[in-house]
Amino acid sequence: MWQRPTALFTDQYELTMLQASLKSGAAHRPAVFEAFARRLPEGRRYGVVAGTGRILEGLEHFRFTTEQLDYLAAERIVDDITLDYLRDFRFSGDIYGYAEGELYFPHSPVLIVESTFAEACVLETFILSALNHDSAIASAASRMVAAAHGRPCVEMGSRRTHEESAVAAARAAMIAGFASTSNLEAGHRYGLTTVGTAAHSFTLLHDSEREAFEAQVASLGRGTTLLVDTYDVEQGVRTAVDVAGPELGAVRLDSGDLVDQARWVRRLLDDLGNHSTRIMVTSDLDEHAIGSLQSAPVDAYGVGTSLVTGSGAPTASMVYKLVSRVGANGEYEDVAKAATNKASVGGRKQAVRALNERGRATTELIGIGERPTPAIAGRDLMVPLVEQGTPGAEYMGAEGVRRAAARHRESISELPGIARKMQKGEAVIETEFVT
Amino acid sequence: MWQRPTALFTDQYELTMLQASLKSGAAHRPAVFEAFARRLPEGRRYGVVAGTGRILEGLEHFRFTTEQLDYLAAERIVDDITLDYLRDFRFSGDIYGYAEGELYFPHSPVLIVESTFAEACVLETFILSALNHDSAIASAASRMVAAAHGRPCVEMGSRRTHEESAVAAARAAMIAGFASTSNLEAGHRYGLTTVGTAAHSFTLLHDSEREAFEAQVASLGRGTTLLVDTYDVEQGVRTAVDVAGPELGAVRLDSGDLVDQARWVRRLLDDLGNHSTRIMVTSDLDEHAIGSLQSAPVDAYGVGTSLVTGSGAPTASMVYKLVSRVGANGEYEDVAKAATNKASVGGRKQAVRALNERGRATTELIGIGERPTPAIAGRDLMVPLVEQGTPGAEYMGAEGVRRAAARHRESISELPGIARKMQKGEAVIETEFVT
Repeated sequence: MWQRPTALFTDQYELTMLQASLKSGAAHRPAVFEAFARRLPEGRRYGVVAGTGRILEGLEHFRFTTEQLDYLAAERIVDDITLDYLRDFRFSGDIYGYAEGELYFPHSPVLIVESTFAEACVLETFILSALNHDSAIASAASRMVAAAHGRPCVEMGSRRTHEESAVAAARAAMIAGFASTSNLEAGHRYGLTTVGTAAHSFTLLHDSEREAFEAQVASLGRGTTLLVDTYDVEQGVRTAVDVAGPELGAVRLDSGDLVDQARWVRRLLDDLGNHSTRIMVTSDLDEHAIGSLQSAPVDAYGVGTSLVTGSGAPTASMVYKLVSRVGANGEYEDVAKAATNKASVGGRKQAVRALNERGRATTELIGIGERPTPAIAGRDLMVPLVEQGTPGAEYMGAEGVRRAAARHRESISELPGIARKMQKGEAVIETEFVT
Repeated sequence: MWQRPTALFTDQYELTMLQASLKSGAAHRPAVFEAFARRLPEGRRYGVVAGTGRILEGLEHFRFTTEQLDYLAAERIVDDITLDYLRDFRFSGDIYGYAEGELYFPHSPVLIVESTFAEACVLETFILSALNHDSAIASAASRMVAAAHGRPCVEMGSRRTHEESAVAAARAAMIAGFASTSNLEAGHRYGLTTVGTAAHSFTLLHDSEREAFEAQVASLGRGTTLLVDTYDVEQGVRTAVDVAGPELGAVRLDSGDLVDQARWVRRLLDDLGNHSTRIMVTSDLDEHAIGSLQSAPVDAYGVGTSLVTGSGAPTASMVYKLVSRVGANGEYEDVAKAATNKASVGGRKQAVRALNERGRATTELIGIGERPTPAIAGRDLMVPLVEQGTPGAEYMGAEGVRRAAARHRESISELPGIARKMQKGEAVIETEFVT
């Protein structure tokens, strides 16, 4: 599998901070960085952690190539001492945090990096890029899956976002419970189920809708999905049934009033004897549209734009903050920014999701320096992800996605039912710092 | 420079359509596809075309590798005949369209692909991903630059979006007039000006703010930018001036009421004799925040989240439609979808921006099959981008970005002044089809 060099997915200030701290000597101070979100996107009841596996995959390739070093030298971005440091760069510290697929709430310590300042500092942008993008998509996807109440959701938004974001979005959607994706690169990289049949252009290419349907059925079989709204939907359905017969797999509706259309198309299919032909709808759906289609006889939802743009919240707004480091006295000291409206909480965190007698989540408990003790029961939220520079293989690749999807299902099942409502509201459980 | 294989940035339906059309024979029909947006994002007065150069760069690497073909075979996504076709795939057609950096309006034919159906069909997702993402960012960036009225805007949003989107976003921002970016990979790939100094973590790493500033100045020089809001802003400014002296390059404000703060920090700097020390502000800015800071003594704007998420419009919603193809009779026929709310206009387009006597844009004229004639004057909007499979070198790499930025400046200068207002409104010029 092709691998990207990831080391320049970095903001320049990380390397200039590295340079200045190498000169002051502080670069080698042991340090603890924490990634967290100060708040959930407006109105959301919970967030979904995603991107963790991609961070681990990228970490393995986070090396500065000769070409990259030559660039940094030619542009005089850093000095020779820093270039020497980067030439040998290899993250050798520990990373722990929420397992991918886990839910998060305001101030949940989603990812903690422990290493020297230098090593942790250089990873900042790459870690945040993966977490912020993928968590935003997974958080939106999870609501769509909830709205669909068991009907399968298909990810098909690749064309609405950057081609690499599209791959990560497909991956994040599957973690949050989507059934399949149209994205082949994502299918290839992560072993995801892929789907796809035909677009309007295929119908328009042929001299008639019938010829197009015949061509598709001849090649893909009667079980295929025929797109019936290029010209007239009723005629499209009739032609589809005529061409494919009772074994026609599905029809796809991609325009118009979908609730109304799904109803009469279902009746028409039944009247024509196609009781097992399914109806897939795919036109600009989001979690609210999916919710409003629940009463209609729809068998699958194809979701595009709104999924890959996080349905109004395209980034998770996580930040990466130094929370503790060894000072001049040789001891770890908690540190925190005091700035107005952006204050942070210092100290190495541990997190437990407190549960009630029925196993429902009640509070996000965050301990500073020690494990918080839940009143009744609780589940530890932090797992080791990278140990002395070595990423846990189980979190990466196809296995990582499978585990994350399972984690997501289990964590969701712990939440109070209100979490799955589409109405805006506060975080469904409160975050409590325990010191 | 490292190159990505791009051929699997593809929705599965493109390959199943290819398979079905290879079987029906229609795959080899000459065809014309068009990328366009039915509307601008809500309230926007114009859009900015971006991504074109990246499409051309990606096209050079749009080949199916053996590993990719093995995947498609193993998953039985397509049949052997289709695999054989893909093994030799190389786009050999023509692409023309709006030069990158050009403005677009509803139905502007931004990109036109002419080739066989098979060749054009397979490119759909990759072309739309690049156009939709990059145009969304460039369109938002252009408004920010307008709001900044000549003060430099610095792109620093990498951490809020996917790591590869971040590179494309930096590139798109520079096309729309940003002065520099924090993203090193973008700097490397496209020869962009990069900037960056230090984060709060650098201050917190050291035992005091003074030690941190001393370390930064010792390494990066007195002309550096010191971040003064980790603890107390006034004390931060005083310490910064004390450490760096009158040559201090800039202070950065990243929290609080920026308008008020910029005013008193300016006075304080002046009182301390630091008349040439600049003020940079960087806290969650968007075009509206930039506008409201215009009366404040700010020298540069750092923009992050809102830039890379398109400031409320994270995708440009362009579509890619078959508009003409050779039919059974051997002649080109215009084709168009009739579906409710998603109708398209068939035919090969040409586009001219009509100008008035003073050289101001008045109408987007779109001719079907022939060049539309403007009443007074006009500028042809379409340029050849790819000829018989060979992309124009001038549109790619660093040269492509420079040309696109120049094109953008010139096109913006043609617009009526109202286009640069931040208020929501209709497209600033109307689109007119001429047949």
